[in-house]
Amino acid sequence: MIIVMKNNICEDDLKRVSKIVIEKGLEVSVVKGDEQSIIGIIGDTTKIDPRLIEVDEAVDHVMRVSEPYKLANRAFHPDDTIIEVGNIKIGGDNLVLIAGPCSVESEEQVIEVAKAVKASGANILRGGAFKPRTSPYSFQGMGSNALDLLVAAKKATGLPICTELMDADYLDEFNEKVDIIQIGARNMQNYSLLKRVGQGTKKPILLKRGLSATYEEWLMAAEYIMANGNPNVILCERGIRTFETYTRNTLDLQAIPVLKRLTHLPIIVDPSHAGGKWWLVEPMAKASILAGADGLMIEVHNNPEAALCDGAQSLKPKKYDNLLKEIKELAKFTNKRIQE
Amino acid sequence: MIIVMKNNICEDDLKRVSKIVIEKGLEVSVVKGDEQSIIGIIGDTTKIDPRLIEVDEAVDHVMRVSEPYKLANRAFHPDDTIIEVGNIKIGGDNLVLIAGPCSVESEEQVIEVAKAVKASGANILRGGAFKPRTSPYSFQGMGSNALDLLVAAKKATGLPICTELMDADYLDEFNEKVDIIQIGARNMQNYSLLKRVGQGTKKPILLKRGLSATYEEWLMAAEYIMANGNPNVILCERGIRTFETYTRNTLDLQAIPVLKRLTHLPIIVDPSHAGGKWWLVEPMAKASILAGADGLMIEVHNNPEAALCDGAQSLKPKKYDNLLKEIKELAKFTNKRIQE
Amino acid sequence: MIIVMKNNICEDDLKRVSKIVIEKGLEVSVVKGDEQSIIGIIGDTTKIDPRLIEVDEAVDHVMRVSEPYKLANRAFHPDDTIIEVGNIKIGGDNLVLIAGPCSVESEEQVIEVAKAVKASGANILRGGAFKPRTSPYSFQGMGSNALDLLVAAKKATGLPICTELMDADYLDEFNEKVDIIQIGARNMQNYSLLKRVGQGTKKPILLKRGLSATYEEWLMAAEYIMANGNPNVILCERGIRTFETYTRNTLDLQAIPVLKRLTHLPIIVDPSHAGGKWWLVEPMAKASILAGADGLMIEVHNNPEAALCDGAQSLKPKKYDNLLKEIKELAKFTNKRIQE
Amino acid sequence: MIIVMKNNICEDDLKRVSKIVIEKGLEVSVVKGDEQSIIGIIGDTTKIDPRLIEVDEAVDHVMRVSEPYKLANRAFHPDDTIIEVGNIKIGGDNLVLIAGPCSVESEEQVIEVAKAVKASGANILRGGAFKPRTSPYSFQGMGSNALDLLVAAKKATGLPICTELMDADYLDEFNEKVDIIQIGARNMQNYSLLKRVGQGTKKPILLKRGLSATYEEWLMAAEYIMANGNPNVILCERGIRTFETYTRNTLDLQAIPVLKRLTHLPIIVDPSHAGGKWWLVEPMAKASILAGADGLMIEVHNNPEAALCDGAQSLKPKKYDNLLKEIKELAKFTNKRIQE
Repeated sequence: MIIVMKNNICEDDLKRVSKIVIEKGLEVSVVKGDEQSIIGIIGDTTKIDPRLIEVDEAVDHVMRVSEPYKLANRAFHPDDTIIEVGNIKIGGDNLVLIAGPCSVESEEQVIEVAKAVKASGANILRGGAFKPRTSPYSFQGMGSNALDLLVAAKKATGLPICTELMDADYLDEFNEKVDIIQIGARNMQNYSLLKRVGQGTKKPILLKRGLSATYEEWLMAAEYIMANGNPNVILCERGIRTFETYTRNTLDLQAIPVLKRLTHLPIIVDPSHAGGKWWLVEPMAKASILAGADGLMIEVHNNPEAALCDGAQSLKPKKYDNLLKEIKELAKFTNKRIQE
Repeated sequence: MIIVMKNNICEDDLKRVSKIVIEKGLEVSVVKGDEQSIIGIIGDTTKIDPRLIEVDEAVDHVMRVSEPYKLANRAFHPDDTIIEVGNIKIGGDNLVLIAGPCSVESEEQVIEVAKAVKASGANILRGGAFKPRTSPYSFQGMGSNALDLLVAAKKATGLPICTELMDADYLDEFNEKVDIIQIGARNMQNYSLLKRVGQGTKKPILLKRGLSATYEEWLMAAEYIMANGNPNVILCERGIRTFETYTRNTLDLQAIPVLKRLTHLPIIVDPSHAGGKWWLVEPMAKASILAGADGLMIEVHNNPEAALCDGAQSLKPKKYDNLLKEIKELAKFTNKRIQE
Repeated sequence: MIIVMKNNICEDDLKRVSKIVIEKGLEVSVVKGDEQSIIGIIGDTTKIDPRLIEVDEAVDHVMRVSEPYKLANRAFHPDDTIIEVGNIKIGGDNLVLIAGPCSVESEEQVIEVAKAVKASGANILRGGAFKPRTSPYSFQGMGSNALDLLVAAKKATGLPICTELMDADYLDEFNEKVDIIQIGARNMQNYSLLKRVGQGTKKPILLKRGLSATYEEWLMAAEYIMANGNPNVILCERGIRTFETYTRNTLDLQAIPVLKRLTHLPIIVDPSHAGGKWWLVEPMAKASILAGADGLMIEVHNNPEAALCDGAQSLKPKKYDNLLKEIKELAKFTNKRIQE
Repeated sequence: MIIVMKNNICEDDLKRVSKIVIEKGLEVSVVKGDEQSIIGIIGDTTKIDPRLIEVDEAVDHVMRVSEPYKLANRAFHPDDTIIEVGNIKIGGDNLVLIAGPCSVESEEQVIEVAKAVKASGANILRGGAFKPRTSPYSFQGMGSNALDLLVAAKKATGLPICTELMDADYLDEFNEKVDIIQIGARNMQNYSLLKRVGQGTKKPILLKRGLSATYEEWLMAAEYIMANGNPNVILCERGIRTFETYTRNTLDLQAIPVLKRLTHLPIIVDPSHAGGKWWLVEPMAKASILAGADGLMIEVHNNPEAALCDGAQSLKPKKYDNLLKEIKELAKFTNKRIQE
């Protein structure tokens, strides 16, 4: 961490500010410039709040030089984290294919879709039980009943299941029934929930990027889960909020190579929510693979016109099947292994 | 709601799409243009998901013409909502002044600050007990103990207290001890929490704007609380996320007159979190008053240099006192009543 | 175009507002709702300014239902536009590969790079002569001299040349020496320049997306050039400005399939400027191809460490060569034709 | 400037990178940390491109500690710049009131509005002659003829005139007829134009903030003009682009106190363009004054319903008159002097 002093400060200012740092058990190194002096802080700065040092009148601003996350940081954990769900691997040179309906609507629906996506080559079934909806008047998901239908679909197909947890009160039930617990974009900085899935489970957590979360904030959210005891975090890029409103969100595929550099955690892409339009799913899914994604999470519905939510962004099983054929070919270009 | 059809569609397309709407109990009115036809939907469209209609191949896109919120909508509730907390009024022609430390750190601290802000003219005491922090390694607040210290400060000064609820498990305790329950920016779309403070309390909810929430999304979050049974929602503008990083967030003061038009709910401003720098608080607090805000929420700390969080954006009591002197004069320009 | 009236307006309001529209030679169709009425406008609305109608007190807001651009609109020109530069085709099922140094620095440099990228398979040479730099103290490009060096490189390799025009005063010189005229992101809404390259040349214009330009604004910029007489516009996605600062800009690859739908103009991607880091170029170039891009524009420098600008985002010739080998394989997945 | 090295680099890496800096005539100071080392650069770093140093494989990233602008920097010019236009002063403790129609439409219109705003207390007349419009089919302004009408209005009222220059070809004519030359938001990074108004005139330049320009980029645009010879730059905040689309742009009033700290140049606010709605002008104009603005630029039209552009955001003369009465009272709170 670097403390940048104001112009025209005096020796006493440098001493006073240095003392604040030294009292926290760290070392300082002062660099005096012609106009501006800086104080370099040496040691573990993760526990220092830079904004507190900025309170001092002689300080212009404070800059971090290293990342504030440790457990999620590739610098301290160079090897890829590989998370196992049954016999499916997520991370490393494995490609994971997650698919299923936006929301679980009936036993027939979820089993039909599960069978279809399995036949196409999907490894994990997704399906919404509790749905975060912008409007209180929209369908909010079937709740616990949907969890049982997902379990039935798992029984019917062998596919592990992934669904979103919105309320920590359901954590025990999720622990019992669900294989991957999703934290949605709108809860990415719900720190109470992050702590609870850190402390209360070892199940893999699929952590979606918040709508306006920087890479650092996203990794700090992962760090919350990890620091609370659960190292099994899968990151999921699903588009960010920008000024462009034609698409639901702007898919940030640069996130893939950047995150690969910053962290050892696996990172997958959800092209369905990013664009919000089914015809964007195919090109963006393919592009994601070439960007180096560890997997794809795609909405598939047997009858999108009658879906209770997000039909507009769901693929029909036939389209998904065609897409996976191509994805399997493209995976060869990134040395990712298709899993059966 | 308007359904915009694609170019070159046929009569059958118009009939099929119209039928989808009619089956939901609404009426349609078709307008045929030279190139493009539209279908106007007449009736209560809040329960229609426009994205589902967009699934139809003949539909180009669907546009709302009216707001998807009803209870928060000024069109159906023209008079200002006025929320009472003890003998303090929030909304209408009343100005409310909320102040206190970012986080409660000790009994001495909170009582000292409470007495100081009361002496300056503040009406309500704020103080963080549970703190949402970007880093799991930062001070997370004193938790329940802090609630008791706030109650002690209330006893010492008579000021009602306002603090943030991050986890619905504490709702009973908040119901018992707290006068205004704050929902933080990062939880603005934590729908589980919104439902719980809708169903489980009639205490006023101070709903901060999410970092990248549009006005409509913000009002839909208020609608969640209201539709679940609690009509007492106070909106709080606290800055939004933009490309500018010099300030912590970009304070959007246009939000004040816009929200006044869209909703009957009171709206206040938190200039401390918006800029993240104490020297921005004074000009932005004054500007907020002239923009028509119903109140201000300002961080005041007796020793910002040693604050456990957000000292950089806290005013010292003396500066707050000077500021309130000016605010009281400026309130005359907006016909807002200072409350003693 | 749809005029949404305020609630509780009367018959006279509808008549008055309708009259405004009818007087401009268009037809109206009124749809009366329970709470809200709308006026549909039938006919060519491109010349109506919706914000002028919003001045009327009875009008709530005005919404476009069709795009304000005509010449660039695929609806009126379903076939892909194919632009020819020498024997190179841009658009349709052709892939174009543009490469070269950020800025022209010497005859040796530009010819060496030109030969290298040609050997790898590039079709067109890019090189900056006039450089838009954030700082007035940075290298601003060699100017006209650089144009002559580019011409020399064209003579040495046969590659057509593409370079940025910042000032219409140089248009004659560009007309004489340059094959594709680039309009930079920062000039995308420099309407004087757009008009001039519309009226003063038929050379293809490579129009980069503005830093915060919506798809519609970008197409309106293309429309400016086309409406002024030059139909040869190539769009270039180069990243947009968002809250994320780790990368220089956020590359928006959804732009490719979206623009393919909205317009018949070719669209290519510049992954070098988007990320601002050389190690992002390879994955993003490949992802762009799968997203359906008509081409790539990539910075290649023989000595990035000593480049006078943007070395950090330039590939070395060897890396570019490896990349093109992969690109050629990937092109098969999008039915794009590699050109020799 | 600080060079942050990667983890696990060796002594040779530090030497090599230090040498790059030393060869440019600057000094270095190396701070070795447990995990990360940094190299502090001492001396004038404005001419160093940090991205070039980032090319080195051992460098993680480079951070500026001081601003890249010198002439616009308050650190080197502590006193407020005061710009004189006739007997009107802009900057310091003077408040300037600029008003007039969005676009000049006829002699009657511009003179009528000029007389009205003068009677209300405006100091300078604004009026668009050349209009940057998103659509090539919209009214583009009366051009040179409008300059003559502005001159006629100046003659009739004594008000100096301010209008936008879009094309440097007209600079001589502007030099002759116009008192303040406006550079629009869309041309804020049109570096050719910035250089030309730096070199070709000493007339004050009103530099609007670009739609997605950071404070630093905005000041670098001012630096372009100043470094090219014209020190008379007035900054104008007019709203930035964000995800919120209800308003045309998001007015960033924090820009006022921030810019006052970073630069000595005057800064005014244009609340008309920011919100794009006339009813936002009054509250935002008042808020701007309290935020510390040196002036206001407001659109006034005698017949907004028939305005050829931007009628929706124009005040009628009567409303402007009422607003100025309040502004004059509010100016007392910021120690700004009203000028007659």
